[in-house]
Amino acid sequence: MKSEAPTESLSEGRRRRGPYAKSAKRRSQIVDAAFEVFAARGYQGGSLQDVADRIGLSQTGILHYFPSKRDLLIAVLAKRDRMAESGRPDQQGDFDAEVLDQARHNESVPGLIELYTVLCGESATETYPAREYFIDRFRRLRAEYAAELAELKASGRLRDHVDVDRAAASLIALWDGIQTQWLLDREGTDVVGCLRDYLELILHPPTPAIPEPGLDF
Amino acid sequence: MKSEAPTESLSEGRRRRGPYAKSAKRRSQIVDAAFEVFAARGYQGGSLQDVADRIGLSQTGILHYFPSKRDLLIAVLAKRDRMAESGRPDQQGDFDAEVLDQARHNESVPGLIELYTVLCGESATETYPAREYFIDRFRRLRAEYAAELAELKASGRLRDHVDVDRAAASLIALWDGIQTQWLLDREGTDVVGCLRDYLELILHPPTPAIPEPGLDF
Repeated sequence: MKSEAPTESLSEGRRRRGPYAKSAKRRSQIVDAAFEVFAARGYQGGSLQDVADRIGLSQTGILHYFPSKRDLLIAVLAKRDRMAESGRPDQQGDFDAEVLDQARHNESVPGLIELYTVLCGESATETYPAREYFIDRFRRLRAEYAAELAELKASGRLRDHVDVDRAAASLIALWDGIQTQWLLDREGTDVVGCLRDYLELILHPPTPAIPEPGLDF
Repeated sequence: MKSEAPTESLSEGRRRRGPYAKSAKRRSQIVDAAFEVFAARGYQGGSLQDVADRIGLSQTGILHYFPSKRDLLIAVLAKRDRMAESGRPDQQGDFDAEVLDQARHNESVPGLIELYTVLCGESATETYPAREYFIDRFRRLRAEYAAELAELKASGRLRDHVDVDRAAASLIALWDGIQTQWLLDREGTDVVGCLRDYLELILHPPTPAIPEPGLDF
């Protein structure tokens, strides 16, 4: 995951100070503006003009960097992925602890959750350009979670009769659904509590770490 | 719930054959068309022109019946509620059996689920006209489900340590989330299976009905 960090060469460093750097900065400004517009109004409801207005560009100026609104959406989703990835608590702990840490972190980035919820809802519409993105995302996430749960099963933490694949899909579903409720009623919705309940229903508590004998006394 | 069935008087019957009946029919045509447009493109993405085109009317013709697009959205959501209500299996059985029956029924009305998913996602956007509708809907549904679970708790069917309010929110969240996955991947998503798993995690199996002694032999 961390292998994508740039390994900057001298020539790249040079280019960044030239026109390439300016262009990259402008692209990044446009994506930031589009992120805000799509989160606030959705992809369908947010126009290129809205994006352009936010940064004092013309629509033509934007289309110079992103040939279509669809390309801009794809760039916004890629930014979302990078933000989600960098916001992921960097721990090698238990799966359930990681899920709860991530859920706690998400409460500090409501704009990110809003963008995800709106665009994911829109993905059910016909001819939506990011439909494939969400299909792939769910497929990948379900496989990842199922693999984590299979490991927990092997180590004896999964409760009897829990189906690994359906539990993976259910956990993702519950998380998405409760975040939607949270966006509409932050005070009245306990995202972390609901996820913790679910994880406790499917998992035995982790075995407390046993101190190695003979070391401490 | 069923008290809303019309009690038709003679004069109403007369009016229905006159201009009133024509007007009601036209309104209903417009709502049907808007339902399809919003389900396919979302509220933000679907235009009044799209609705008008579907039934050979002008936008002005539509605005004669619905003064704004927002009014049309409210009418579509009211139709959704009526459809959801009439599609509800009419049984007085166990809560969990009713949930699963409803989930099975929903698989036969993907357009209804699509409309709900798209509009609910959009409700996270700013200044969305139906935001209040979804806030109210979640509030009402959570209270209804919590009341059902409290009854199950009183009858001893709720498992120990299950929090009634969080379980109500979680069940709704899981249902919404898994339906979204289903819209994107029908073959790979087992809506009923995931809901059944969750209900089995929080509830003891129902006690089989005990035949009254002395009647059968």
